[in-house]
Amino acid sequence: MNSPLKAHVLLIGNELLSGRIADTNGQSAAKILMKNGIKLTGISVIPDVPEIMIDAFRDRLNDNDILITSGGIGPTKDDLTKPMLAECFNKKLIEREDVAEIVRGNYTRFGREWTPSLNSYHVFPEDFIALKNEKGLAPGLAFFSDRNAIFSLPGVPRELNIMLEEEVLPHIFKKWPKNASHEYMLTCRTFGIPEEKIFGELAPELWDKLEKIGGVGSYPQIVGVDIVVTVFGDEKQRELKFMEMKEVILASKIKDYIWQWGDLPLPELVLQKAREKKLTIALAESCSGGLSASRLTDVAGSSDVFLGAAVTYANSAKESILKVQSETIKSFGAVSEETAREMALGARELYRADLTVSTTGIAGPGGGSPEKPVGTVCFAIASKNGVKSEKHKFPGDRVRLKIRFSEYALLMLLKEIDHL
Amino acid sequence: MNSPLKAHVLLIGNELLSGRIADTNGQSAAKILMKNGIKLTGISVIPDVPEIMIDAFRDRLNDNDILITSGGIGPTKDDLTKPMLAECFNKKLIEREDVAEIVRGNYTRFGREWTPSLNSYHVFPEDFIALKNEKGLAPGLAFFSDRNAIFSLPGVPRELNIMLEEEVLPHIFKKWPKNASHEYMLTCRTFGIPEEKIFGELAPELWDKLEKIGGVGSYPQIVGVDIVVTVFGDEKQRELKFMEMKEVILASKIKDYIWQWGDLPLPELVLQKAREKKLTIALAESCSGGLSASRLTDVAGSSDVFLGAAVTYANSAKESILKVQSETIKSFGAVSEETAREMALGARELYRADLTVSTTGIAGPGGGSPEKPVGTVCFAIASKNGVKSEKHKFPGDRVRLKIRFSEYALLMLLKEIDHL
Repeated sequence: MNSPLKAHVLLIGNELLSGRIADTNGQSAAKILMKNGIKLTGISVIPDVPEIMIDAFRDRLNDNDILITSGGIGPTKDDLTKPMLAECFNKKLIEREDVAEIVRGNYTRFGREWTPSLNSYHVFPEDFIALKNEKGLAPGLAFFSDRNAIFSLPGVPRELNIMLEEEVLPHIFKKWPKNASHEYMLTCRTFGIPEEKIFGELAPELWDKLEKIGGVGSYPQIVGVDIVVTVFGDEKQRELKFMEMKEVILASKIKDYIWQWGDLPLPELVLQKAREKKLTIALAESCSGGLSASRLTDVAGSSDVFLGAAVTYANSAKESILKVQSETIKSFGAVSEETAREMALGARELYRADLTVSTTGIAGPGGGSPEKPVGTVCFAIASKNGVKSEKHKFPGDRVRLKIRFSEYALLMLLKEIDHL
Repeated sequence: MNSPLKAHVLLIGNELLSGRIADTNGQSAAKILMKNGIKLTGISVIPDVPEIMIDAFRDRLNDNDILITSGGIGPTKDDLTKPMLAECFNKKLIEREDVAEIVRGNYTRFGREWTPSLNSYHVFPEDFIALKNEKGLAPGLAFFSDRNAIFSLPGVPRELNIMLEEEVLPHIFKKWPKNASHEYMLTCRTFGIPEEKIFGELAPELWDKLEKIGGVGSYPQIVGVDIVVTVFGDEKQRELKFMEMKEVILASKIKDYIWQWGDLPLPELVLQKAREKKLTIALAESCSGGLSASRLTDVAGSSDVFLGAAVTYANSAKESILKVQSETIKSFGAVSEETAREMALGARELYRADLTVSTTGIAGPGGGSPEKPVGTVCFAIASKNGVKSEKHKFPGDRVRLKIRFSEYALLMLLKEIDHL
């Protein structure tokens, strides 16, 4: 096979169209499919409306090998996926003992008893395969035609993810034996230059040169810009093309702005590099409000590097916990490099960490002033090499600013680890 | 007008299909449209592929009054939205002085100089309206036909959000005068009963009774289940129907499980209630790793209630910072109600807060044992009423568990505030 299998992900549910819920299934399905060499051609969100659902099933199967749906397979009356699948494929909905057995097992796992008359999980389209759901109650559905496969999974993210990996992929690779060739995204992550400057002033020929290697994309991130080349091939071809890409970029003026070849999230990269050098990290967070700690602790195994964080939102907490001098805050303000330095040093002492970084700034919307507008932030990093501070002004609203503050603090850690 | 305007949101970009980037534009556009009485009928994500883009424009405009696209209007070569719009509507792409003027203004705002030959933001389809972009460089696009309107906005979330509010909505309400009737989602948030139990055992007739008021939906959240009734009408009708809904639910066995009538995010509700009683809050976080602090500080104005958090991941930090007795950790373990209680009391002392909550548990994937498997968590809450603790076992993977730990801790705060 010279091109990847094509899949579409269809997310079903009114709640996703009301803004009540942030969808995460689209992205996680995309990741899992990509990693397995399956090309995601589109994601769509539709309401629980019978005609729209049936139209969407037919339409998306037309253009794709695989259709994966999420949502609407639960026991409540707004769960319409099963009846619509039955109608679309002209199958009867029947009570199935094989499905009932799976459901009973799911209930037993949760220590609950199943009342089939109230929760008709076992009413299932004939000829459909029931997929195991190790993390929830509702079995998933699979159906194969000559050309296509359709998989219907629950909307609950943890159920969907595990069922994709453990049920859907094996079914797919049984029907379509796994391809040695994948689509790969080769990534160069930069920091400190705006997107338009990269391909404008700094390296006007870069885009065309990269395009000889593969499909080129340029993706502004919260902090920095990712340059991505998409290639199709096997592992060895991937290696060769990645080397070509590095050569082209390192020959350009972009080379001074690179912080990673690859797409490891920043918190993982920081933890990995610290672990390699057996360094421990602690934080002193004011304006980032615990976000940096939370991002580091999202990573499994972070506890061998990360000791903790003093989130000191109130000035009194900066003084009593981090031993910032009240004189410092009075003279320079809580948002100052002086305060940031004492915070970083205080946290290093408090946690007995090798490396600490502090953030103090104004996330807004209130609290700004002409001299220190919203977005003003001071950082300091403390290690055995002493303490260094920086002052910046970032754009964005409160939540966005917190992310920028945190991202920049982690980038400072990354840089400092290289010097330890 | 007896039914709301219909809109579709089309997100354009390969990066959204690769799993590299979590889309937030779909949800934020949904929120803004909903609030303004416009019905979102679907969201779709498509790649930067010319034919797919043009097909999608035509197809979605067929079924909707309004099409809003995001992405692909920047200056790099993978930005195809402008040429595809021109082709779709049979317009020429031309250099436009009116657009150039907007672009020059945007550059000036960022203190940069614009080189039109490198960044052809001003090459624009004829007859299209240019939309101001106060937060970025690329102007948006608008085009009206007799029946439809199409708006193309940048993919950068903060640019998209502000342009939706300040450019797109005024254009929409100029073409279609604003309707006094909206679609409203009336929400009852419950905690402590599984979804299938609500409409199964506990209140089997509830669904049908609610359906007489409006469209019913049941949405499992990270912790708890939201029951939602969607109604269409004016503000007064909304009030009446919300009263009806409350009556129906309060007459059922669900009444003991309600924690909110409305859909304020939990951190906002906690801060609001604490503020009303002039209470200050601090946290002692181990297994939630700073997430609770970060969620509280996401809320503007949180600093008058929230003093800070001691994120004590390492046991040594629990002892040195929160003054947990090493004897307690030795005898009962770090994950124990005893440790949780000392953490909460320690944080109350350290931050001099009215109210503190602590979390200590096992987020996994490592660290579990037969007696204390992954998901085991202890909480304690300390106030002038003393200290209370609870032990639980939650399901989910690491990131999901952190959210549950944090959500439960915030629910404990909410409950305790009622008793103060």
